[in-house]
Parts: sequence; C-alpha cells; structure tokens
Amino acid sequence: MVFLPPDLRLRPPDPALLFRRGEPDDPRLGESFSLGHIPEGRIPDVVIVGVPQDLGVRHNNGRPGAAEAPTAIRAALYRLTPETWTRHSLEQLCIVDLGDLIVDGVDIQAMHALQERCVAALLEAGTCAIVLGGGHDIAYPNAAALFQQGECGILVFDAHPDVRPRRNNLPHSGSAFRQLLEERNFPAHRLAYIGLQPFVVARVHREYLQSRGVQSCTLEEVRKRGIDTVLPELFAAISDRGRLPVYVSIDLDAVPSAFAPGVSAPATVGLLPEELLWAASFLGARPNVRLLDIAELNPRYDLDNRTARLAAWIIATFLAGMSERPLPQ
Amino acid sequence: MVFLPPDLRLRPPDPALLFRRGEPDDPRLGESFSLGHIPEGRIPDVVIVGVPQDLGVRHNNGRPGAAEAPTAIRAALYRLTPETWTRHSLEQLCIVDLGDLIVDGVDIQAMHALQERCVAALLEAGTCAIVLGGGHDIAYPNAAALFQQGECGILVFDAHPDVRPRRNNLPHSGSAFRQLLEERNFPAHRLAYIGLQPFVVARVHREYLQSRGVQSCTLEEVRKRGIDTVLPELFAAISDRGRLPVYVSIDLDAVPSAFAPGVSAPATVGLLPEELLWAASFLGARPNVRLLDIAELNPRYDLDNRTARLAAWIIATFLAGMSERPLPQ
Amino acid sequence: MVFLPPDLRLRPPDPALLFRRGEPDDPRLGESFSLGHIPEGRIPDVVIVGVPQDLGVRHNNGRPGAAEAPTAIRAALYRLTPETWTRHSLEQLCIVDLGDLIVDGVDIQAMHALQERCVAALLEAGTCAIVLGGGHDIAYPNAAALFQQGECGILVFDAHPDVRPRRNNLPHSGSAFRQLLEERNFPAHRLAYIGLQPFVVARVHREYLQSRGVQSCTLEEVRKRGIDTVLPELFAAISDRGRLPVYVSIDLDAVPSAFAPGVSAPATVGLLPEELLWAASFLGARPNVRLLDIAELNPRYDLDNRTARLAAWIIATFLAGMSERPLPQ
Repeated sequence: MVFLPPDLRLRPPDPALLFRRGEPDDPRLGESFSLGHIPEGRIPDVVIVGVPQDLGVRHNNGRPGAAEAPTAIRAALYRLTPETWTRHSLEQLCIVDLGDLIVDGVDIQAMHALQERCVAALLEAGTCAIVLGGGHDIAYPNAAALFQQGECGILVFDAHPDVRPRRNNLPHSGSAFRQLLEERNFPAHRLAYIGLQPFVVARVHREYLQSRGVQSCTLEEVRKRGIDTVLPELFAAISDRGRLPVYVSIDLDAVPSAFAPGVSAPATVGLLPEELLWAASFLGARPNVRLLDIAELNPRYDLDNRTARLAAWIIATFLAGMSERPLPQ
Repeated sequence: MVFLPPDLRLRPPDPALLFRRGEPDDPRLGESFSLGHIPEGRIPDVVIVGVPQDLGVRHNNGRPGAAEAPTAIRAALYRLTPETWTRHSLEQLCIVDLGDLIVDGVDIQAMHALQERCVAALLEAGTCAIVLGGGHDIAYPNAAALFQQGECGILVFDAHPDVRPRRNNLPHSGSAFRQLLEERNFPAHRLAYIGLQPFVVARVHREYLQSRGVQSCTLEEVRKRGIDTVLPELFAAISDRGRLPVYVSIDLDAVPSAFAPGVSAPATVGLLPEELLWAASFLGARPNVRLLDIAELNPRYDLDNRTARLAAWIIATFLAGMSERPLPQ
Repeated sequence: MVFLPPDLRLRPPDPALLFRRGEPDDPRLGESFSLGHIPEGRIPDVVIVGVPQDLGVRHNNGRPGAAEAPTAIRAALYRLTPETWTRHSLEQLCIVDLGDLIVDGVDIQAMHALQERCVAALLEAGTCAIVLGGGHDIAYPNAAALFQQGECGILVFDAHPDVRPRRNNLPHSGSAFRQLLEERNFPAHRLAYIGLQPFVVARVHREYLQSRGVQSCTLEEVRKRGIDTVLPELFAAISDRGRLPVYVSIDLDAVPSAFAPGVSAPATVGLLPEELLWAASFLGARPNVRLLDIAELNPRYDLDNRTARLAAWIIATFLAGMSERPLPQ
C-alpha cells in the first residue's frame, strides 16, 4: 500500500521528542504512535504531518516563528497520557506521525503544492489527517486537498477571516480562504467561521464574507448562544447534516493571549481553551471530519510552552472524540 | 473655536505610532483620528488626551512605569480596525487625539491643576473626553473638571477605593476619591465602585465608604448578580436615572493579572476582560457619559503588550458604544 | 503548654518579609501574626508551618524550585489586608507562623518523619494547621499526622492523583496517596479528589483509584455540576457528614497555567482561581477541617509572583471562612 507520491520528502519526527518516564505502566502518547512510517498493511486512523514554515506569515508582515511550531506541538503531545476518563482509549487508534514536509528553500506556492499533494494522498488512502502548521496559509492547500475529492464543508476557528487578496501576487497567512473561494470556486455556503472579532477585521472583509454568503459566527454570538449550540448548527449546515466530508481549521489566535500567548497575532479576548476542547471532542467524534489543522503557534513568544500544550490538548481531545466514533461497518 | 487655554502645552502624538498596512481597504483606527489638532469648525465627538506621569504612583510607594502608558495604549489603539460587526462604524465619529499634556518637571499638584483645566476646557466645548493615565491620581482632576460644571455622577471600576489620606500632604495614586469627597465636597451618593476586593483594602477605608454612603459593589456581588444587572442599577443611581453627566474611571488592576499583567498592582482575581468590555459598550452608548479614563497601565511589567491591548479594546468598545448614541436633536 | 517536641527545629519567619506601609490604619495580615512563637497561654486558631523542600519533586523527575515556595507565599500573604467585606475580621483569629521546618541535609524519609511529628503535635494541641509546601509529597506526612489520631477524611484538589509507587524505594511528589493507602491502610472511601484531568494521568492510576473505591471528581464533572454542588457532596461523604476531622490538600497545578504559571507541572485547563477560593471559603468555615496544605508552588517559574499571590489568597480566604466558624461551646 503506497500512501505518498515518491517525490514527496518528509523528515521523520525526532525520537528525542519522545518523553519516557521509563515506567511500563505509564505509557505516553508518543510511544504509541508510529513515527515516520505507516505500519505494514494498515490504514491508520490518523496521520500527522507537520508543515514547518512561516513564509506566509512573513509575507503578511507578521512576526516569524511558526516554522518552529510542529516540533513544539510534538514535544507537548508526545508527553500526554492516552487516558481519557472514558471507556475508550487513544491507544485503540492507529496513529502515525510521518514527520515534517521538507520545504527548505522552496517558495510558498511550491510549498502549498507539495502540501496539497501530500494531504490529498492521505485522504485518498482513507485516513484522517492532522496537519501541524505553520502559518494559516496552510489552510489553502489543506482545503484544496479535500475539495479536489468532491463537495465538502469547512469550519474555521479564528478571530480573522483570512480573506485578504494575495500580496505582490503571492499567497500569505491572511489570504487562504479568499484564494479558496476565488481560485478554486469553493462554494461559500460550505464555509463557516467561529470566533470572528471586532477591531481586528477590515470592514471590507466582513462585507466580503456577507455578500458571498459565508456563515460568520462572531465571538459575541458564541457568548450569547453557547459553543454547544452554535457549533452543531454550523456543522450541520456546512456538512449537509453530516453527509459531506469536513475540514476543521483552528487558528490559535482565536484564543485570548492569557491562554495562548505564543501566536503570531495575540488576542485580547476570544474562545476559551475549554470551549475549543469541547469543540475538538464534538468534531473528533463525527465520522465525516477528515482533516484537522492547527495554525499560527509561534513558540518564540510562548510562555513555558503554554500555547504548545494547548495545541497538544486540542489534538488529544480530537483523538479522544475519534475513539468514540462508531466502527465502520 | 478655541478649545484649550493658550498656556496649556501638549505634545502631539508621534505619527510613528500609526500602524499602516499600506492597504487602502484596511484602514486602521489611528488613521481616522485627527492627531494633535482639532479640525477647523468641528466639535469632535471625542478628544483623547494623555497624562504621562507616575508621580502619584511613586508617592504611594508603587512601582513606577505608568508614565509610559499613553504611548503604549496609542500604539495598540491606532492599530485596531474600525469594524464593529454592527451597522455602525467608528469612522462616523470625529475623534481627535491631542497628544500628551507636557508635565515635565511639574510637581503633582501643579500637574493635577493643568489636567483639570485641560479636561474642563474640553468638556465645556461639548466634547466627550478620554484621558489616558498615568496613575489613578488622574481621577481627582478629572472628577473635579466635570464636577466644576455642576452635579454629576462617577463610576469607578477598581479593586481598591483610593480613599487614602494625602501623604506628606501630597496627593498620590491612592487618594483621589478622598480628596474629591473632602476637598471638593463631592456628594458621596453620586460615587459608586464596581469590583472592590477583599484582602487589598484596609478596613478603615471600607468603613469610610460605608459611613459616607458611597455605593460599593464588590467583585463577589458582580459574580452573584452579573455585571449586566449591577452596572445599569449603579449607573441609574449615580446619574439620577441618566439625567446627570457621568465620569467613568477604569483602573486596570480591577482585572486579574492573567489578563492584565502590566499594572502597578497586579490582581489575583477580578473583573474579566469581557465584563469590562460589556461595561464599556453599555457606557459608551449612554449620551450622558462625558468623560472616561483608563489608569495604572504599567508597560514595564506588561507581557507582549497584553494589557495595553486590553486598554485599547476598552476604548474602542466605548467608541463603538458611542457610535450607537442617538443623534443630538 | 508545650506544642512541639524539643528536638524539632524551626527557622522563624524572616521579619523582612513583613510588608509595612507605616500607616496605623492600614495593618497587614503579617503584622497580626505571631511570628516564630506561640503566645503564652494561648491555643492558636491556626499555626502555619513551611516545609521548604523539593526533594520529592526531584525524585519524581520534576523541575526543582518548590523549596522556595514558603518564603514566596509568606511575602504575598503578609502583605494582604485582613479586610473580608463581612462582619468578621481575620484579626479576631490567633494566627501563629512558626516558620520553616529545618530540613537541611535530611533525606526525604527523615524529612517526612519530622513533618509528621510536627503536624501531629500541632493537631494534638487542638490548633488548625496550615502547611506550606514544598512538593506534594508533603501530603503523606500531613495525612499520616491527622490519621494517627483516628478516622478522618481527605479532600485533594489536584489534576493528578499522586498514586505512583515509590521510586527506587523512595517516596516522591507523585506517591503520597498510594503510600497512605498501602503503608498506613487509610480507608479509600475517606479520600476524594476534585479536578482530576485527562491526558495527565496514567490509565493504571485511574483504575487504581476506581478499584479501591476512591472518589474521583474530574474537572469535567466540576464543569457540568458546579463546584458548589460537588464539593459539599464529597465533603459530606469523606467526613461522614461533618463528623470526622478533615485534611484538605491543594496542589496548585490543579489551576490553569494562565493563573498559576509558577508550578512544577503547568496545566492547560483546570479549576479557576474563583472556584478554588469558593472552596477555600466553604472549607474554612467547617469546624472539622483541621489541616490545610498548599503544594507545588515553584517560584522559579512564576510570573511577577502571580502564583504565590494565588496561594496567599487561598490561605486568606480559608482564614476568612474560619472567622465565620461557630465559637466552640
């Protein structure tokens, strides 16, 4: 079984990132992952791939650092235990961490093309993919990879809609969803945002969303109606009531900087960690969620790995949700 | 139209604080402000003035730094977008940032006198004033400026009541409201606090408030009854049901240090950013709110400008509330 | 009246930790404590003892620093005012801070033996004891000291259950409650946890708790049912409806790192400061709570003393609860 096109090169995860207590009865998540390869004859439940680049952030005049995020997330994720306090265990999942796409010296468009082919190959093989950004421009190749397989829905947790035009004709960390709508003709009613905020969005971008019919749930609406109300509603809408495959994209700057200081653009208010974790659990449990990414972690501004740990918890909670998915028949 | 006495000197805002993306469809708040002057023939909706001093903090044995606050708040405020996600826009307001009062080498009492004359002149001209502290001693000249025009109400968001006596006969950052009550005979029932806390107030100061009939809403009461209940009640009480002009004073140490680390006296618990923003929106929308200040930001202890951004959001949210005020008839 | 065995040596608190404003009408908590001695002829309401060691943390492969915690907590605690905004005052309590157990050069088991004898002597004298850790291994001698006097209940606020086996036959900061259950035959149904989390507990340790019948209230259950529901229920269960003496142990890593960055093992989610303070108030007011400890503060990782202040507030709030206890008849 071949998963990836042979010209795609990945750097396997550094085993030094594994945390081992040396106690057989206290295994950690990383120890149960397959690192750098897919076990013979298996279709993994989940494949993790990192995209260690911040070119898109730089093109957007942001502060560099997101290229270091995949390593920081892995260090935190590998250290967690598989214990969920439910009857399910993360150890029942086959999880592969293939490592990072090798993107050294590649320009941003070629990078996006590599990522799109990589993610598309994983999705075609039937696995669920988790992509560790990188700047939020990773959303464009991710969305394209799922959309090239047919109609799908996209749910974005973000303070910003990222519908800026290209800049000097180049994609960047603020342009992914405009590219998707305009360059790929993605249907606007299949795209929804949760957590958009005032004072950090240009009026023209708000109007762009509204004129096209993109669904935008602001932070204020989450506060009024509750994440456990708005999320299931939006999810049903973009996925045609669970019929379509779904891609979930989480920009960590949706979270207030008290909880997520290590991001490219820190936030004053936002979705709370427990709200995002509730969402990750809900979404992990939906069989049609095929693709998750986490973007914009910037370890250079993190405090004692607080934000990297939040990213790791989001992934672990999503996996815990997956462990509750009904078995395929 | 002359607004300010000719001997009052202000240092106009440094245009280098303006954030420009260089994209015409993404204007930022600072670009729509008039910097350093009042447009010919206009009465601005809002005039911003900074008071870059921390003499009062030093006299109160606090840690210096608040003198740098106006610049830090401007840098964060100018960068915000005018987008409110409502039908109103901040761009419909005429906002002037006159810059900072020049107080170099002036003693604290002379400083307060300058500030009082400056704010009084703005209020007399019919504009709403926003004062960027500085230590919380700025509340004394601010309150005095509004009160010299007639009966008014004062609402203070703070963990501490700031009713200490003068120290060595000098005002300081903990004495403003005692001075106001005793030196200006301000009527106690027109003064109310929101967010007072245990363990940071002397018993004698709590008793001082209670014996005079000042209304004190503790943090615990906010938790029990909700900011959206206690604030409208107190507002009605101090303003004679909206009839009197109101001055709102926000000490950022009312907020827990997780969200507001950059203050003179960091707090363990407190009003949450979203509670303060709800209050700012409510108060901005009241036509009788004439004066707002934000005190005690200390950029030297801030983390990645988190607290300066909170101050900027409070102001932007207050302005968003203002944009919803009914037009004068 | 002799409280302590003569061979137990304590280093009295450094009077330099006292904060004095030099204003007679603004006394601080530390000034009303008896430092280093028990007033002649009195049985104190509370005796504070510090255990400045992090050997258990080191044996558990944690990051050192908790040995510096008692001094950091005292500096924050002494500075608070006794004002509770109720009719009760902390000044009506007789509070003694005996200082720190001298444990220089002593191994961890001898240290625990010293601590157990010290705390047992205080409890026998009829006072309530507050122990400032130190790593959470302080829970073993604390629990043993109360349990040697007869049946009792134990309530633990923690993200982790600390039921690891000894390591190289040595106790450590993750073994206290397993030692208690196995080496002292403490009855499992008298032990309860609040705030246990997924992803940081080994499955085998969760099963250990469940197979023995220890009551485990996870963070998720606190979120669903409220601390004001689960705490009274658990308290009634472990104390036989208030009949038995109770020991309360608080590991600060039960709190998210946004609010408690200065701990050995920072948390992504957790009990909020206001939840812990509600619990401290509730528990302080129960006459059968005889012993409280606060563990795992690590000042080396603290931000501007945020976590030390939280520890101080927990203690002050517990004391405020105590001030409301009915007088003994």
